[in-house]
Amino acid sequence: RIDRQRLWKDIHTTCEWGKGEKWGPEETNIGMSRLTLSDADKQARDWFVETTESLGCKVTVDAMGNIFAVRPGKKDGPPTFAGSHLDTQPTGGRYDGILGVHAGIEALKAMNDHEISTEFPTGVINWTNEEGARFPISMVSSGVWAGAFPIEKAYDLVEVGGGKATQKSELERIGYLGSTEASYKANPIGAHFELHIEQGPILESSGGKIGAVEGVQAYKWFTVTVQGRDCHTGTTDFQNRSDAMLTAAKLILHSHNKAFELGCLASTGILTLKPGSTNTVPGLVRFSLDIRSKDDAKLQRLEEALKEDFSEIADGKDIGGLNTLGTKGRGCTMEWQLDTDSPATKFHEDCIKCVEASAADMLGTKASAQVQRMTSGAGHDSVYTSRRSPTSMIFVPCRDGVSHNPAEYCSPEDCGNGAQVLLGAMLRYDRL
Amino acid sequence: RIDRQRLWKDIHTTCEWGKGEKWGPEETNIGMSRLTLSDADKQARDWFVETTESLGCKVTVDAMGNIFAVRPGKKDGPPTFAGSHLDTQPTGGRYDGILGVHAGIEALKAMNDHEISTEFPTGVINWTNEEGARFPISMVSSGVWAGAFPIEKAYDLVEVGGGKATQKSELERIGYLGSTEASYKANPIGAHFELHIEQGPILESSGGKIGAVEGVQAYKWFTVTVQGRDCHTGTTDFQNRSDAMLTAAKLILHSHNKAFELGCLASTGILTLKPGSTNTVPGLVRFSLDIRSKDDAKLQRLEEALKEDFSEIADGKDIGGLNTLGTKGRGCTMEWQLDTDSPATKFHEDCIKCVEASAADMLGTKASAQVQRMTSGAGHDSVYTSRRSPTSMIFVPCRDGVSHNPAEYCSPEDCGNGAQVLLGAMLRYDRL
Ligand SMILES: NC(=O)NCCC(=O)O
Ligand SMILES: NC(=O)NCCC(=O)O
Repeated sequence: RIDRQRLWKDIHTTCEWGKGEKWGPEETNIGMSRLTLSDADKQARDWFVETTESLGCKVTVDAMGNIFAVRPGKKDGPPTFAGSHLDTQPTGGRYDGILGVHAGIEALKAMNDHEISTEFPTGVINWTNEEGARFPISMVSSGVWAGAFPIEKAYDLVEVGGGKATQKSELERIGYLGSTEASYKANPIGAHFELHIEQGPILESSGGKIGAVEGVQAYKWFTVTVQGRDCHTGTTDFQNRSDAMLTAAKLILHSHNKAFELGCLASTGILTLKPGSTNTVPGLVRFSLDIRSKDDAKLQRLEEALKEDFSEIADGKDIGGLNTLGTKGRGCTMEWQLDTDSPATKFHEDCIKCVEASAADMLGTKASAQVQRMTSGAGHDSVYTSRRSPTSMIFVPCRDGVSHNPAEYCSPEDCGNGAQVLLGAMLRYDRL
Repeated sequence: RIDRQRLWKDIHTTCEWGKGEKWGPEETNIGMSRLTLSDADKQARDWFVETTESLGCKVTVDAMGNIFAVRPGKKDGPPTFAGSHLDTQPTGGRYDGILGVHAGIEALKAMNDHEISTEFPTGVINWTNEEGARFPISMVSSGVWAGAFPIEKAYDLVEVGGGKATQKSELERIGYLGSTEASYKANPIGAHFELHIEQGPILESSGGKIGAVEGVQAYKWFTVTVQGRDCHTGTTDFQNRSDAMLTAAKLILHSHNKAFELGCLASTGILTLKPGSTNTVPGLVRFSLDIRSKDDAKLQRLEEALKEDFSEIADGKDIGGLNTLGTKGRGCTMEWQLDTDSPATKFHEDCIKCVEASAADMLGTKASAQVQRMTSGAGHDSVYTSRRSPTSMIFVPCRDGVSHNPAEYCSPEDCGNGAQVLLGAMLRYDRL
């Protein structure tokens, strides 16, 4: 049995670097603002290393700053890991990623408390920059570990928002550029279990307690650049403008309408423009576009439709009523850049069954009503570990399905449930 | 007669601080990036003071950094001024404002060269922050001079783009926080003539050489704030979002459609959002809205319509097909802030006639075809001087009507024509 109070305290008191916005009266009603490779992230990492070493783990930091803490088993071999991430969104919550790492540590503590010897090693992983919020590729370091893209691409990522730091320079700066190769070969994983808040409303609204995650929906991130021409807002009539901001507004609206039509999602979370003056029509706009679907083919259909429609809308053609005669102007040109490509993922049946069985142990007769198989809307490091090792995830409910928001909330009961199922799933897999 | 070559050289060589983007092969094919109260602006100001003092002028700097250079006349009294501004847009051109100041200096040089004694004093004014690009109220310092708003409001303006400098702190930093009160009482103006590029296409396309400007259209600047809720792009379906970016896109598009419908203009030149992460739906967007019309009543109608429609669109109501069922979500809330309010302006008939007569002197028989009365689409310091003194403006053609763009261009011939008409208008008014 895990210690539920100890877990709650670890999450809220012990490892509190990067405290975010307060959203309610209680001491724990506070968000988390711990961008990857920031000073707060360094402190959380230092705590992770100290804590797991004090539990008797051997700690390895790889060239992407991923930290592997391994507790020896009776035999040698690839460990069964609990893994997730300690970084957050700029205005994130206290559970997304964090719960999974803390629950992994709690699982190791429980094994120590009960003097459990596993067949093979077990451990916890803290993956670097899962969020993709600061350096804009999500799950980038588990991606490098899996060989999904070269380490140079990850190193060269520049922070969003106009700063100059790269992922590599920040790894160096905070002292987490490890010497071990970032690869499934150097750090093999026997199995990967990731406890996470659902980040959506399904469990809560259906009375579910544990999600046994079968897979993750597909998503792609793009940077779209719209090139127009700077001009004076007071002296240039609509016909003579190449208004990059107005065009971007049309494209963003269209991406949502089209995504809805095809049963997909679309979102724009970043937008920058130039030159940035009230009385100059912007000549340049760049925005992020995040599109998602459970179905790779549907996502591709959406991507193709948007690529075609965006050019035509920018060109002044009337698609979806977006270019009324008056405001279409002289048109703009467009460019697309693909930043993240994460196809739909299926997890490993053995691991999913370990989660279900562990949940059944805990919930007893209520399990049939309270355990559900589900698909994740968000990406997770488990997407990449599943390419190289058996993987599954455990979801627990979060209030109103809210995530990437300071007010993200998972109750002490649900955090504890998740950690208990995580421990059970790891031990079951170890015996398999 | 003014010295056309000397004027061209002054514009392009002598006072070159803040050089912008090169847009063509010739040495003079270069923009200007001289934001108000920047280091480049300080250097241009120092040059203005030295140059006018060397011409025998008495120079006064007021509490807004406006610089008045006065050449004595036979009698004392409020001077006849040429005035404009040396500041530019972030990616501005080499003529907007600059031409007017340089031509004023050239007019004084010509008076000296020809030993002209005027009845009353004459002079040149360099107004501070005409553009409103860095501190977002345009013509803010002539506005304070005219008593249109209190100096505290101007002092407290914070620079756009996230910096912390205020207009006052920057005036102090560059040493242009003068001790004379910024007021039409402390620095009375006998008459104000402003030479400016048209910034629009009318003169060029109709073969006009000189515009005798009768007035300026009305405009207002707003900052619109859209408040939604941060959430996860991958796990939050459209119905559960309060997407401030999508809402802003709808509002921007709607402002253009509505402005077109009512024969007005609308533009968004600045947009910032929070938190600014690819996979977080933004909870907060702020954007600038610049609306214009020749007719105060029409502008008011547009403002009222947008205020009503924006709230409804943000609320999820379907206006103009902008809220299809699928993407309207839970709605956002809205706030408006008025930043600049510049009603339609009529200039003084005496001054307009001086401009026409001076243009007729220069153009001879061609004058009837080449001199036109016109209304300015852009605001100018003359808007505020006209509240306290007889005022008019002189427009000269600029290529393709392009302004607020590095490639803004006014030919040497047109610059010279403008300066010649400016000198003539000042001398005529002085004799009046
Ligand atoms: N779990 C999570 O928020 N992951 C970030 C990657 C994504 O945007 O889905
Ligand atoms: N002339 C000019 O560009 N003035 C700036 C104020 C405005 O936006 O009209």
